[in-house]
Amino acid sequence: MEGQNEDVRLGANKYKERQPIGTAAQSQDAKDYKEPPAAQLFEPGELSSWSFYRAGIAEFVATLLFLYITVLTVMGVGKSSSKCSTVGIQGIAWAFGGMIFALVYCTAGISGGHINPAVTFGLLLARKLSLTRAVFYMIMQCLGAICGAAVIKSFQKTQYERLGGGANTVSSGYSNSSGLGAEIVGTFVLVYTVFSATDAKRNARDSHVPILAPLPIGFAVFLVHLATIPITGTGINPARSLGAALIYNKDQTWDDHWIFWIGPFIGAALAALYHQIVIRAIPFKSK
Amino acid sequence: MEGQNEDVRLGANKYKERQPIGTAAQSQDAKDYKEPPAAQLFEPGELSSWSFYRAGIAEFVATLLFLYITVLTVMGVGKSSSKCSTVGIQGIAWAFGGMIFALVYCTAGISGGHINPAVTFGLLLARKLSLTRAVFYMIMQCLGAICGAAVIKSFQKTQYERLGGGANTVSSGYSNSSGLGAEIVGTFVLVYTVFSATDAKRNARDSHVPILAPLPIGFAVFLVHLATIPITGTGINPARSLGAALIYNKDQTWDDHWIFWIGPFIGAALAALYHQIVIRAIPFKSK
Amino acid sequence: MEGQNEDVRLGANKYKERQPIGTAAQSQDAKDYKEPPAAQLFEPGELSSWSFYRAGIAEFVATLLFLYITVLTVMGVGKSSSKCSTVGIQGIAWAFGGMIFALVYCTAGISGGHINPAVTFGLLLARKLSLTRAVFYMIMQCLGAICGAAVIKSFQKTQYERLGGGANTVSSGYSNSSGLGAEIVGTFVLVYTVFSATDAKRNARDSHVPILAPLPIGFAVFLVHLATIPITGTGINPARSLGAALIYNKDQTWDDHWIFWIGPFIGAALAALYHQIVIRAIPFKSK
Amino acid sequence: MEGQNEDVRLGANKYKERQPIGTAAQSQDAKDYKEPPAAQLFEPGELSSWSFYRAGIAEFVATLLFLYITVLTVMGVGKSSSKCSTVGIQGIAWAFGGMIFALVYCTAGISGGHINPAVTFGLLLARKLSLTRAVFYMIMQCLGAICGAAVIKSFQKTQYERLGGGANTVSSGYSNSSGLGAEIVGTFVLVYTVFSATDAKRNARDSHVPILAPLPIGFAVFLVHLATIPITGTGINPARSLGAALIYNKDQTWDDHWIFWIGPFIGAALAALYHQIVIRAIPFKSK
Repeated sequence: MEGQNEDVRLGANKYKERQPIGTAAQSQDAKDYKEPPAAQLFEPGELSSWSFYRAGIAEFVATLLFLYITVLTVMGVGKSSSKCSTVGIQGIAWAFGGMIFALVYCTAGISGGHINPAVTFGLLLARKLSLTRAVFYMIMQCLGAICGAAVIKSFQKTQYERLGGGANTVSSGYSNSSGLGAEIVGTFVLVYTVFSATDAKRNARDSHVPILAPLPIGFAVFLVHLATIPITGTGINPARSLGAALIYNKDQTWDDHWIFWIGPFIGAALAALYHQIVIRAIPFKSK
Repeated sequence: MEGQNEDVRLGANKYKERQPIGTAAQSQDAKDYKEPPAAQLFEPGELSSWSFYRAGIAEFVATLLFLYITVLTVMGVGKSSSKCSTVGIQGIAWAFGGMIFALVYCTAGISGGHINPAVTFGLLLARKLSLTRAVFYMIMQCLGAICGAAVIKSFQKTQYERLGGGANTVSSGYSNSSGLGAEIVGTFVLVYTVFSATDAKRNARDSHVPILAPLPIGFAVFLVHLATIPITGTGINPARSLGAALIYNKDQTWDDHWIFWIGPFIGAALAALYHQIVIRAIPFKSK
Repeated sequence: MEGQNEDVRLGANKYKERQPIGTAAQSQDAKDYKEPPAAQLFEPGELSSWSFYRAGIAEFVATLLFLYITVLTVMGVGKSSSKCSTVGIQGIAWAFGGMIFALVYCTAGISGGHINPAVTFGLLLARKLSLTRAVFYMIMQCLGAICGAAVIKSFQKTQYERLGGGANTVSSGYSNSSGLGAEIVGTFVLVYTVFSATDAKRNARDSHVPILAPLPIGFAVFLVHLATIPITGTGINPARSLGAALIYNKDQTWDDHWIFWIGPFIGAALAALYHQIVIRAIPFKSK
Repeated sequence: MEGQNEDVRLGANKYKERQPIGTAAQSQDAKDYKEPPAAQLFEPGELSSWSFYRAGIAEFVATLLFLYITVLTVMGVGKSSSKCSTVGIQGIAWAFGGMIFALVYCTAGISGGHINPAVTFGLLLARKLSLTRAVFYMIMQCLGAICGAAVIKSFQKTQYERLGGGANTVSSGYSNSSGLGAEIVGTFVLVYTVFSATDAKRNARDSHVPILAPLPIGFAVFLVHLATIPITGTGINPARSLGAALIYNKDQTWDDHWIFWIGPFIGAALAALYHQIVIRAIPFKSK
């Protein structure tokens, strides 16, 4: 049965799976894989391990750098009256996506490289990490994001307040439900990519997945920004939205703020469901 | 003879092939490869396998997300009077190419990652998958594309109709035959890249091809968009053209619509022929 | 001595080489490498091998597609009065660099993926391929480039003549010697990257170099275009310059045309010298 | 104890580390790794080795090409009154980041691929190379940068002086301390990526890290440019700043010049500290 659990049997299926290209090298069944066991909700041992705290620090530093680079880029574009003499809206999308690429690459071996509470939430639902760790990561991500935005405000206060500092709001012309929808689907795209790219089955076959996975993940962030910057400025990361909102601290930002928590968490949950139920068919597998 | 079938013998060729660089590591003949047997037209066993339906669902979801992100990006650029304050036409090209990169990466292990009826058609001609599977994929791709465009229209109906929602038409100043030519050559570039990047011979040598191949494939889509957006808006994917056309549903779009089926299918067929006959020389090989 | 020929001995050097980072995994000396023997000038056996002709056809098709996509992109940008409503000059640079990335990826296993007479010339000087093969490749590249430009002119003749069809000339404000210098250094950057990325020593260590090398090579082309489009439109590829010039066929283009052959050939020769003498120290090695 | 030194024991930690995704394939502990021993400050043997001088030459040539391409790109953008008809500010960021990607890729196996005195300084603090080698590299990098800028001035003197030739200054509207802060954090991002991407532990697991690491390193440079071009023009590389300043040679450039040495060196030192103390916990490890 091992090595065959790729295929949940519905019937007589005795035929060797054919290869609809792209899967050629993947279906050679050379290496078995085992779904790793679900993480326990509480793993007391973690709390006495340095690598647990180091992972939290790595999430903190990564999210700080993420906000620092992206908010500076947003402000550089906002400051100029002609977008042509800046890196442009496309440059903003590159800043968000590129930072996620580089930071996931750098922290994947330390903390798993989430840098986003929605990603942590999705992985928690799929039981890839303990509740303790998930809560710790989320707190560190939010603190990192707040510090990242604060660093910028500390040295260019006036411009920060004038330009909004990258805070997310629903653009005029769009309803709140449009904004919420954009956040849900956008986060789905991101978390779906995270699950696909770090899938246990893939890892079993290709030992170098961990160092290639950051590229599609970073690209997913870039692409969602291309599509939804005009709608919400693109959150899909509650820590990023919180950090920018708290340091900017204007009413209008707080009014819409719930969208940038509820939306990403719903999107992440849907992606976790899709991957675990449709792609991995975990509920239907015999133990 | 095994391991030598790289070279169809025309004559005395007893000389070890030299390495015109770039092929160095590839001609070490360390691992043999065997052309996988041609897929049967009908494989009844497939229909009772969960992985068959899962593959169709994966194509549906991927094409839905593809339309969602790309059409939103097209509309974001169209809405602004000054292209400078948007991600620009180049940003549109990145959205199409980048989504194909990320989605092929994510679905290659599930369905092969076609996300495009022209790709499926090319692979069918090369007998890489069964007719049953090809038809199933194409239907799911078209349904996914329609749903992806419909999601956008559902929350911004007015703008969708005003901005055209990414529907493909031949631009004024170009004849229908120019548009058809652009679609044929553009799809040739894409499907030629798909064949080259997922070649069985390559797979035999490098087990990690499946996770690197999405990058040149995504780039091929990006590049064709750079070149032909001014001519047809760039289809090279009948599902994408159908989804956008059906949800937009204006006469002008339907008039040109045949170009975005005939063109891609001809281009895909030519690429399949080129790869199977010139590059793999399959008809000339002794069994 | 084998496995130690990394280091040409100048003196007592008995110390194990330290690893100034980045080279860590590369200096483990796990796998020896042997410089492949220099190619003979004439290898009569090649001429009776199908893979020889197939390689030429692959170069022809790749160069044709290269010109087709890039010249169309150049014309799309040129046609619009506001560059903001096009993919822009940066988009042109992406078209050239991206096509080289995708095409080298696709043809590396067939012909080595040169797609450029200057690259072929540099590799010939380093004795990586026979003179017979080099001449055959160059002819096929030039024919491919001419056909690629001709395809475009065949369906948009008026615009082709109005917009110049991507032909290279030295821009006003620059002397011929500036243009020549730009072509020499630009081609040096490209051919230097080709040599570094496909180095025999590297190949021996990492079997997947052939599928990663196209990325830095494509980027090199992209970067040279970013820098020198304002000076010469960037040639660094005599086949590309010839194809565009011949189909455009105006006096002004022919006057400067020698620059786009002499410059790239000098740059390629310098890069070959640098790599063989400084980096590989081939003349100083004891047999 | 070997294979377990990932985790500095704070307490009872007897639990096998769980995998918070992204680390899956990395925690299989299949291959042990050993922190390489710290480099000696002086390694007399180096000085009689050809590979030592070759490494210096490689740094010289790489930094020369780096300045050549990037300064030409900066000048091409500066020359045009409308940024829309150039590759734009984003194109400048690509030139810097892309060149670092390509050059690190090309020189990693020869010299380690620093191309930046701040990177060399950070690695020296972490004892990854000898003081002799570090000083030699820095001198060669500065000479290379000066020559790269000089080559450009030699063929377009007037424009070079008019357009500033890419020299770094703190933009009006920003204080010197803002500029210094931007350089510190920017260089931290770069050197943090260098350390993460070339980590000994990672190298032990994945032999192909050396050829993938250049991508996140190049992206880090690109991203810092997106964010801080409006503030300082982005230095984060003292050799680049020195080369541009010396060839431009105007008072205003020299007044701010200290920022582009002190800032990067502080940033690099902080990144080295962070990686060695927090991530690798080297001081706390039992020998």
